[in-house]
Amino acid sequence: MRYAIVFGGVSYEHEISIVSAIALKKVLDFECEFIFCDEFREFYHVASEKMKAKVFSSKEYKKFPKLTLKKGGFFQKTLLGKKILNFDIAINLIHGADGEDGKLAALFEFFDIKYIGPRVEASVISFNKLFTKLYASYLDIKSIDYQVITRDNLDIKFKFPIILKPLRLGSSIGVSIVKNSDELQYALDVAFEFDDEVLVEPFIEGIKEYNLAGIKSNEFIFSIIEEPIKEEFLDFDKKYLNFSNTKRVNEANIDEELKQKLQNSFKKVYGSLFEGALIRCDFFVINGCVYLNEINPNPGSYSNYLFENFNDVLKQLSHNLPKSKNIPIEYGYIHSLNSAKGK
Amino acid sequence: MRYAIVFGGVSYEHEISIVSAIALKKVLDFECEFIFCDEFREFYHVASEKMKAKVFSSKEYKKFPKLTLKKGGFFQKTLLGKKILNFDIAINLIHGADGEDGKLAALFEFFDIKYIGPRVEASVISFNKLFTKLYASYLDIKSIDYQVITRDNLDIKFKFPIILKPLRLGSSIGVSIVKNSDELQYALDVAFEFDDEVLVEPFIEGIKEYNLAGIKSNEFIFSIIEEPIKEEFLDFDKKYLNFSNTKRVNEANIDEELKQKLQNSFKKVYGSLFEGALIRCDFFVINGCVYLNEINPNPGSYSNYLFENFNDVLKQLSHNLPKSKNIPIEYGYIHSLNSAKGK
Repeated sequence: MRYAIVFGGVSYEHEISIVSAIALKKVLDFECEFIFCDEFREFYHVASEKMKAKVFSSKEYKKFPKLTLKKGGFFQKTLLGKKILNFDIAINLIHGADGEDGKLAALFEFFDIKYIGPRVEASVISFNKLFTKLYASYLDIKSIDYQVITRDNLDIKFKFPIILKPLRLGSSIGVSIVKNSDELQYALDVAFEFDDEVLVEPFIEGIKEYNLAGIKSNEFIFSIIEEPIKEEFLDFDKKYLNFSNTKRVNEANIDEELKQKLQNSFKKVYGSLFEGALIRCDFFVINGCVYLNEINPNPGSYSNYLFENFNDVLKQLSHNLPKSKNIPIEYGYIHSLNSAKGK
Repeated sequence: MRYAIVFGGVSYEHEISIVSAIALKKVLDFECEFIFCDEFREFYHVASEKMKAKVFSSKEYKKFPKLTLKKGGFFQKTLLGKKILNFDIAINLIHGADGEDGKLAALFEFFDIKYIGPRVEASVISFNKLFTKLYASYLDIKSIDYQVITRDNLDIKFKFPIILKPLRLGSSIGVSIVKNSDELQYALDVAFEFDDEVLVEPFIEGIKEYNLAGIKSNEFIFSIIEEPIKEEFLDFDKKYLNFSNTKRVNEANIDEELKQKLQNSFKKVYGSLFEGALIRCDFFVINGCVYLNEINPNPGSYSNYLFENFNDVLKQLSHNLPKSKNIPIEYGYIHSLNSAKGK
């Protein structure tokens, strides 16, 4: 199996994606191509040995061959025409916009490229925190009470402390805990910097958080359950360092019953919607009840450090990617209209 | 203003889109280019005078110049290189898959093309009937009770008569009214032909149906409210003929109060989600209450026949398209990591 890792993208998490790709390179046993999507949405084929953060920040990547996305794959211009970049499956490793908002999925679908990552619907449902809540409620999975505010409607119904989150970002970017009214304006300014809609939730001190990653192939394969270290909450800097994580972390110290509950919630969330993706669900547990906090359909470095045998997980997933529906294009109606008109 | 109408696509409604584009050509006062997306997802630049159904069914379109979608637009190969097809705004007129499922929106966003049509999120929410229901419920708009069934879980909770709809199709394709258990198996076979998930609703005889189209520019512009002619329900053949409609229909005979209710529901549905699109909402009214039936983000021939002055509506919309967020790509973190490492 030969993979092409697609990373970068026009996203607030552009740098995170670079770090994530470098981390993944270290743990993958497979042959890999690296396709970088730069700030102008140009694709570059980066040599494996050049996968270093500095190559991107210094713009050295621009020396690498440009690739064009077309039907069937990524193509490189040659003297005689063009040649296709040879791989079996693309891995969507763009975090945030472009990668997790459905754009990359749509490109892969439209241009008939086999890929690992969320499909368009799954992207939209997980990227927009309101839609995640509506989906959770449909699945009968609890989530924290919430409201969506805009600049025109800033009337917050919760008492402090509250937590503000841009509606469509991951990685804690733009997120603030607001303890009192003095802190509110600044937190609003920060959040609205990143989105025109902001999610408000009551902030619950000392809430238990558990992360569980997994895939569905013939059956579900789960990662260990991690209890992330929290200092109030993980801010961007700390989460950023997590993205470069390639070491396994310690399993959360929970009983079998809670483990089962978390895995069952994961199965419901994954459903058929996330087929083709390796996702990480971040859950809260309050009084023994599981709450869905968020769904990461392209978690940092694919949460490789949470799996016993990450390479095998990727292999299993690769053999069970959803197939696009074959829609036959026929001209029955036009033919019948024409014959009715005697043409 | 110069438009490019993009139509065709790999969709069960491919033919409908062709008819729709031909209809639109007749009513538009603007200069227009026509871009056909064929069954292989190749784009062709079709000469305006050749916009006839037979050109497509006979494959004559293949004689026209091929276009490649790239950053900034559609390009045609020339002897000396390539030239861009000259237009200001693309109009997404692909019905069903490709056009209304978020793929075309994603392509336009990714390649920086200004367009009229639903954005990626709006596409997913309107294309998937379950997500439409969840969205309606969030907006506090009623919709008919429902359940989603799969081949593995065919346990229907409603009494006959029921209506079965593939979860992700428009134009009544694959939809059946099932009056008793004898008719069920065939209806299931038909519905599952088009989707792996099927929506089941109780079928309500003689329900009042009203269609309302509109846009948001500085303020909302509404079409007249149409009461579609029903013979039980509009089947594909009849709806198909509707797509070629360029004549205005009669306004529904309803009082001002109901009209206001319908327009207010439309406003809520449109919200900020559908900015950039001309949508048609199909509502039911039961005991004076408005129910959302479906959202058509690319209605047949853009429902031009429902508007007093369709060309002006399009112009208003063109001047109020949502802008993509400008996301700056900086390498602050990588620089700081490198300097911490002394590099």
